[in-house]
Amino acid sequence: MQYHNVSEALSALQAIEAKRSALSHAMAIIYFDSATVAPKNTTEGRAHTLGILSGYMYELVANPENTSLLSYLKEHEAELSLEEKRRSELFRKECEQLSRIPQAEFTEFQILLSKAGDVWEKAKIENDFPAFAPYLEKIVDFNRKFAAYYNPDIPAYDALLNEFEEGITMETLDVFFDKLRSAIVPLLAKIQTAKPIDDSFLSKSYPIETQRKYSEYLMEVLQIDRGYCGIAETEHPFTENFNNKDVRITTHYYENDIASSMFSVIHEGGHAIYELGCKDDYNHTMLAGGVSMGIHESQSRFFENLIGRSKAFIEYIYPTLRNFFPEQLDGVTADDFYRAVNKSTPSLIRTEADELTYCLHIMVRYELEKRLIGGTLTVAELPAEWNRLYKEYLGVDVPNDTMGCLQDTHWSGGSFGYFPSYALGSAYGAQMLHAMKNDLGNIEEKIASGDFSEIKAWLGERIHQHACLYAPGELLEKTCGKFDAQYYIDYLTDKFTKLYSL
Amino acid sequence: MQYHNVSEALSALQAIEAKRSALSHAMAIIYFDSATVAPKNTTEGRAHTLGILSGYMYELVANPENTSLLSYLKEHEAELSLEEKRRSELFRKECEQLSRIPQAEFTEFQILLSKAGDVWEKAKIENDFPAFAPYLEKIVDFNRKFAAYYNPDIPAYDALLNEFEEGITMETLDVFFDKLRSAIVPLLAKIQTAKPIDDSFLSKSYPIETQRKYSEYLMEVLQIDRGYCGIAETEHPFTENFNNKDVRITTHYYENDIASSMFSVIHEGGHAIYELGCKDDYNHTMLAGGVSMGIHESQSRFFENLIGRSKAFIEYIYPTLRNFFPEQLDGVTADDFYRAVNKSTPSLIRTEADELTYCLHIMVRYELEKRLIGGTLTVAELPAEWNRLYKEYLGVDVPNDTMGCLQDTHWSGGSFGYFPSYALGSAYGAQMLHAMKNDLGNIEEKIASGDFSEIKAWLGERIHQHACLYAPGELLEKTCGKFDAQYYIDYLTDKFTKLYSL
Repeated sequence: MQYHNVSEALSALQAIEAKRSALSHAMAIIYFDSATVAPKNTTEGRAHTLGILSGYMYELVANPENTSLLSYLKEHEAELSLEEKRRSELFRKECEQLSRIPQAEFTEFQILLSKAGDVWEKAKIENDFPAFAPYLEKIVDFNRKFAAYYNPDIPAYDALLNEFEEGITMETLDVFFDKLRSAIVPLLAKIQTAKPIDDSFLSKSYPIETQRKYSEYLMEVLQIDRGYCGIAETEHPFTENFNNKDVRITTHYYENDIASSMFSVIHEGGHAIYELGCKDDYNHTMLAGGVSMGIHESQSRFFENLIGRSKAFIEYIYPTLRNFFPEQLDGVTADDFYRAVNKSTPSLIRTEADELTYCLHIMVRYELEKRLIGGTLTVAELPAEWNRLYKEYLGVDVPNDTMGCLQDTHWSGGSFGYFPSYALGSAYGAQMLHAMKNDLGNIEEKIASGDFSEIKAWLGERIHQHACLYAPGELLEKTCGKFDAQYYIDYLTDKFTKLYSL
Repeated sequence: MQYHNVSEALSALQAIEAKRSALSHAMAIIYFDSATVAPKNTTEGRAHTLGILSGYMYELVANPENTSLLSYLKEHEAELSLEEKRRSELFRKECEQLSRIPQAEFTEFQILLSKAGDVWEKAKIENDFPAFAPYLEKIVDFNRKFAAYYNPDIPAYDALLNEFEEGITMETLDVFFDKLRSAIVPLLAKIQTAKPIDDSFLSKSYPIETQRKYSEYLMEVLQIDRGYCGIAETEHPFTENFNNKDVRITTHYYENDIASSMFSVIHEGGHAIYELGCKDDYNHTMLAGGVSMGIHESQSRFFENLIGRSKAFIEYIYPTLRNFFPEQLDGVTADDFYRAVNKSTPSLIRTEADELTYCLHIMVRYELEKRLIGGTLTVAELPAEWNRLYKEYLGVDVPNDTMGCLQDTHWSGGSFGYFPSYALGSAYGAQMLHAMKNDLGNIEEKIASGDFSEIKAWLGERIHQHACLYAPGELLEKTCGKFDAQYYIDYLTDKFTKLYSL
């Protein structure tokens, strides 16, 4: 294809982007349906459709004609706006990566994943790791192969990490996690000797119907427009975005745990706020949506922990929370509640982990992924190794695989290299909070009065609106300087030292 | 494209059918999501995606290369099995029809519909026909244009009718409806003078949460496998099928109306039973799914009325129903309940109409559609004309458009020519019941004991499994002879004469 001018080439790019966005939307909604309301035994038909749709996607992105389009745009780079240049670059990256994956493999992988999701869900419920193992093996193999397609010159796991957080390597992460561990472990040791926090009231009976209404209240507090954002219920909470005006979060209600869904809603709400805040103009282009898993987690964990588990926030919502559950919270003060939802105890489940031990859960997964992809650990060895690391890092005994290596949805979803972004996100968030406080002053006061407008505007202006315009490292640096784990370590140390009067 | 042998050509056909099935699935699930759980203000992104997906569908079906494929298959017709021949024929019909619609128009129509659905829903809630009118005008125009593309040699409305029920014309329907009306009207007149039936207990307060559980019970009674069939809640009940192992029905619960959702579930359950009974091998081919609206309605209305509103059925389920609602049904006998759900009263809402007056509601729509498409009625005149015909046919005054011409979803969904298939389906069903009784003997006894296996097997063998293999007329004839409205008239006359002791 010959292009006569830049505007013609950009139109061609836009047409591809529009199709790409539609195919993604279709696949995402099929996934969302399967996780929320689809009847149990409907995997097969879904696999058929996802196979075909990813075939369409493959033909679109790996189309050899894209080469001439991208060459033309590269030659005329000087005539492109910042946005146009970034769209071309991101599309080039996607084309190059995908073109390296043979179509049959790509389609086979999509079909595998749609089945693996259901198998994992069943295996988790039935504590049946062997049922899931053959799927996991294939997923690991695919990831290893894909990593070589992405970049054969670097270690496979680095190539996968780069997919979730551009530029992040095992070298960086080893240092980051070492530093973090040497701060967390002694802090945790001191906490073991401090006066324990009573959180028994969190596990009273909280009727699910009332929890649902409480979720609506939390969405209101976070000023998330329900006309653009749905809440559904799934085994494992997640956020799915179709465009910046259609985002869905999910949660899971447990009758005997008020904190679980509460912080899931705030966490996923943080993801939703990011997606809903992306610039309208970027919809259906390569710039649409959050830029990376790390930045995404920085936003979700910002709302979940830095705001949601702050004393100011709990003080603000507590009177309403007590109205929802007057009997369950009889005699419990806002401060009691604040302390309870921040209680630090080494535990088994990542998504239920407290803010301090959370990163230790990530480190277990990081170690295991490194070795699974690196080929020094087999899937068959995974459960035992998981349990061993939980004992070593967190000091807990894993009673079964349901509460062990089957707990997360990520691997069944095909993702290796995703987990570290949770820890990175937490650290990014703390660094952003530091910068925000420099700009806005006393944000605790604003939070305590339920006024999130300045906080949301600050994040919206610096992070959300830009969507994929800047690479994650660049975006972070623009917002609050070069990444430095120290902000996170300082934040944790300060919070938990005060909480436990260490 | 050159084909070397039939098997190669059939592979090519199958590849197209597979894609067609996947694109339909994707579009259907986006529609299903929008009707069930999507946040309110998410139309725009959905319209974008549906536009692109229908573009893909258009390119697939209207692809000029299909001509050589279809010619090749036509030339080698003698070598094809019955199934292969029908697949080719159905695909040829679809190609020819679609190729006549310019792609831009097709896409524009899909985008229009995705918006019109939301506008109609809002207009219905707010009794605001003028808000919906401009959309309806465009939909009528599109239908008129499409009819000319389908078949320019016959009246536009005949061409549309043919889309829903192959071979049906205004000529046939005018006769059918005249005959039906001359049986129903005098029967109805007699009923007005008979002793009225008390159905006041149906509008007591029936908590929705319990109604949901009652729906689950009804699905169990109908032996519908919930692993393949979901229930969701929508403004207007419908059934959506993605394949023969993934069907979704919807219902609408009203706290003060136990009969509404009950018979919606049985009606939609009938659609689901049909879809779930289609042959596995037909999935992802042109043969997949129910063959026509008329045959589909014959199944849904068979279960809703001929079974669901029969004395035997009510006697079977009544003890359980009373366990669900002991206070509401205190002092009400199975016979009282049977009489109440069959009470015949001219009313406003089609979906809530009793079995006897139902077809009068259809006749109103048939008259209006004929004239809208024929160009002798404008959209602006529609509400007044609707109200006039309701007065003439049913003797009722329509208080507002919400309960009048805004009540149905069909027009906003783009469908003109659909409504008559409800009446046809009812008549087909009565004719099937007659044949079934000849074969199975006393089916009331089986129903009264909750044994639906023989009834479902009879329908499954004669109707369901064949999916689209036979044209509706042919299928009906194979099952129970040439279409004859007299069976339906006899059935209605017998039932209502006994019910009201006329």
